Formats: sequence, C-alpha cells, structure tokens
Amino acid sequence: MINPKNLPIPSIQRLPRYLRLLEEAKARGERVVSCTRIADDLGQLSVQVRKDLAITGVTGRPKVGYRVDELIDAIRNFLGWNQKTNAFLVGVGNLGSAILNYAGFVTHGLNVVGVFDVNPRLRGKEVNGHKIIPFGEMLDYVKMLNGYGIVVQMGVITVPASAAQDVADKLVQCGVRGIWNYAPTVLELPENVVCENVKLSESFAVLTNRMRNQDL
Amino acid sequence: MINPKNLPIPSIQRLPRYLRLLEEAKARGERVVSCTRIADDLGQLSVQVRKDLAITGVTGRPKVGYRVDELIDAIRNFLGWNQKTNAFLVGVGNLGSAILNYAGFVTHGLNVVGVFDVNPRLRGKEVNGHKIIPFGEMLDYVKMLNGYGIVVQMGVITVPASAAQDVADKLVQCGVRGIWNYAPTVLELPENVVCENVKLSESFAVLTNRMRNQDL
Repeated sequence: MINPKNLPIPSIQRLPRYLRLLEEAKARGERVVSCTRIADDLGQLSVQVRKDLAITGVTGRPKVGYRVDELIDAIRNFLGWNQKTNAFLVGVGNLGSAILNYAGFVTHGLNVVGVFDVNPRLRGKEVNGHKIIPFGEMLDYVKMLNGYGIVVQMGVITVPASAAQDVADKLVQCGVRGIWNYAPTVLELPENVVCENVKLSESFAVLTNRMRNQDL
Repeated sequence: MINPKNLPIPSIQRLPRYLRLLEEAKARGERVVSCTRIADDLGQLSVQVRKDLAITGVTGRPKVGYRVDELIDAIRNFLGWNQKTNAFLVGVGNLGSAILNYAGFVTHGLNVVGVFDVNPRLRGKEVNGHKIIPFGEMLDYVKMLNGYGIVVQMGVITVPASAAQDVADKLVQCGVRGIWNYAPTVLELPENVVCENVKLSESFAVLTNRMRNQDL
C-alpha cells in the first residue's frame, strides 16, 4: 500500500478521465470493463492504466476486467468526491461565474455555500442560484454558518492576482483546509492548508512551445 | 542540446512562473538574478531551476546569476511568446469571456482574430472589443482573412463537451495547427495538429484527494 501522502500526482490527475469513461460505460449498461479497453479509449498504455487504478485499492480480475460500479465508487471515494465539500467562492467575474455554472464540479462534491465579491453593487445578485455576498461580510457569514453546524472546508479564489493573498488570508480565518487558486500568483498559507493552483498559462506554454517545435 | 520534440513537459510548464518572477524583478530595476533567489522565491530546489532554465539555452554565470533581460527573451522565444499567435475562440460563455478578458494571454502572444458562438442572437455583440460571429460563418470568415494574408494558427475551444469535436473539425478545416481545449472531452485530431487539454477536474481531484489525506 502506498503512503497516501506520497501518491504520484500524475496518477491522481488521470483518475477523473477514467471516472468519466466508466460513468459513460455505466450509462450504456456495461457492468465490466477491461483495462485494455480503457487504455485504448484514452490512448494510454494499459500498464499505466492498471498502475493508476491500483492506487484506489481496486484491482481488475484477469481476463474479466474491472467491475464498473466498484471502480466508480473506489475512484470517487479516493478523490473524496463521494462526499460534499463545502466551499466559499470569492470573485464573481467571468471565471468565477463559469465555475458556479459548471455542473461537473457539483458531481465531484463541490458544494458552494457562499459566494463573495468585493464589488458592493453585486450584493444580492444571483449566479446559478447563489446570492452574492459582499466580501467584507465573510467573517460574519461564516460565524452564522458555524452556528448551524456548517463548516467551510474549501476556498475557491477567482480574483485578480493582486487581491488573491488578502482573500486567501480571510479564507484561512474562516477555517478552510484547502484552497483552489485560479489567480496567477503564489499564495503564502499555513502548513495545514493545502493549495492547488490552476495554471492556465502553463497549459498555454506547453501548447505554444509544441506549435513552435512543429516548425523546427 | 535536447531534442525539441523530447523536452520535459514539467520543465516547460514551470517556465511561465520563472518568467513572471523575472518580469517583476525587471520592473523593480534588477538586472541580474541568481538561481538561488529564484528557487527561494518559488519554493523550489535550485538544481531544478537551473535544469529547467537550461532548456531555453541560457545558463547563468557562476556567483553572478542570470541576466534578467536575456533570460526573459530566451524564455519568451522558447515558448513562442515573443511572436503573435493568431487564434479563433469558439464558445462565448463565461469561460470564453474570461479568456477574452484576461490580459495575461495577450502578453503571451495570444492574438484573437475571430470569436464565434453557435447562438445567432449573439451576432455582433462585443466581448472585450471582439465582435461575435455566428459559428456557421467560420469558413467564409477564414477565407476572407486568408485573402488578406492572415493565417489562423490556433483554436481555443470553450464550448460544452458535446459540441467540442464538431468545433475542432471546423477549426482543422480553417488550418489551425494547435488546439487549446477547455471542453472536458478527448478530441480526435490529425497528427499534425497539437492539442493541449485544460483539465480543471484534474486540478480539483488533486486538491480534494490531498484534503482527504489530511484526515487519514
């Protein structure tokens, strides 16, 4: 068994695509799927698929394959997607709105319990059913939630880079244990708060570099 | 010298953060920056920084460091960010609008020359100065551009997964050599078209898995 603190990040990153493929197979009524089929459909090596899936604790049966239901459960459990993750989202620009409107994250357990923006004119405006709360009222709001036994576990930051550290500090005060940071900046956080930076520029860099190398 | 087709992707992915740090140093009037400083500021090992930066062809001078201007140029050239990349963007929802409004991609060379949406009611509406063109008119539009000597090199796909393959096929017909795909689906593309998938779910998976492991 691998120490959960030392799991290979690339394997974890590939789990959502296996999950998507398995859910499609389930929707078609398939109950078993082989490692080779998964590998072929995704254009990967089957030895890698087997290794990736093993981190969830499930192994396929030789010449049969994986039981679809069991593997879906195992992946969702491994990722923490079979339980709700209560989250605050800060910054309701286009990017914040895109996240609030994307149904996919809800099926991954993202449960937004507060949406904030620094612009006071947005107060009360709704985005996909979430009423926008002024950023300055976050601490009062979280106290109210805590009074009802609701704990906020995650903060989603979709503000400009210049505002991101302030927002992160406030989210830490609210007790979040994880931050999903879309702002292009490195955040300073306490050791017990994990952070995942979404780096759209990094993805763009890989693409433009590969396009440039086509010409070489 | 490393074969440009066999470059380590993680090193390429880290280049934008070095570039950001160097541009900040330049703005402060610094002309030389040491590898150790870069490593400390980004929380990385200096041996990794040195190795990453070497792929651009620039090496620092012992006990002095990197010349900021030279290294900025080298990274931008290596990523193809010192020249414009003409692009079509398809799908003007929140995500597409976020990309069109984010100034950072312009400094990376992203030069959007056409914005499309399948919704005919959006015709002529402007997003950050770009007039929306009906998706059905893309081929006529690219012929017009080509007549003026303008070639479209990249397609940015910000439509739902179900529409992404159709959009990709049309972009390939327009002659793009690279696709930046935000739709959560695997695209089938000719071999000479490179594709970079932005996988927000993968980033979310790493975060929720790490948060789950905090409890173990």
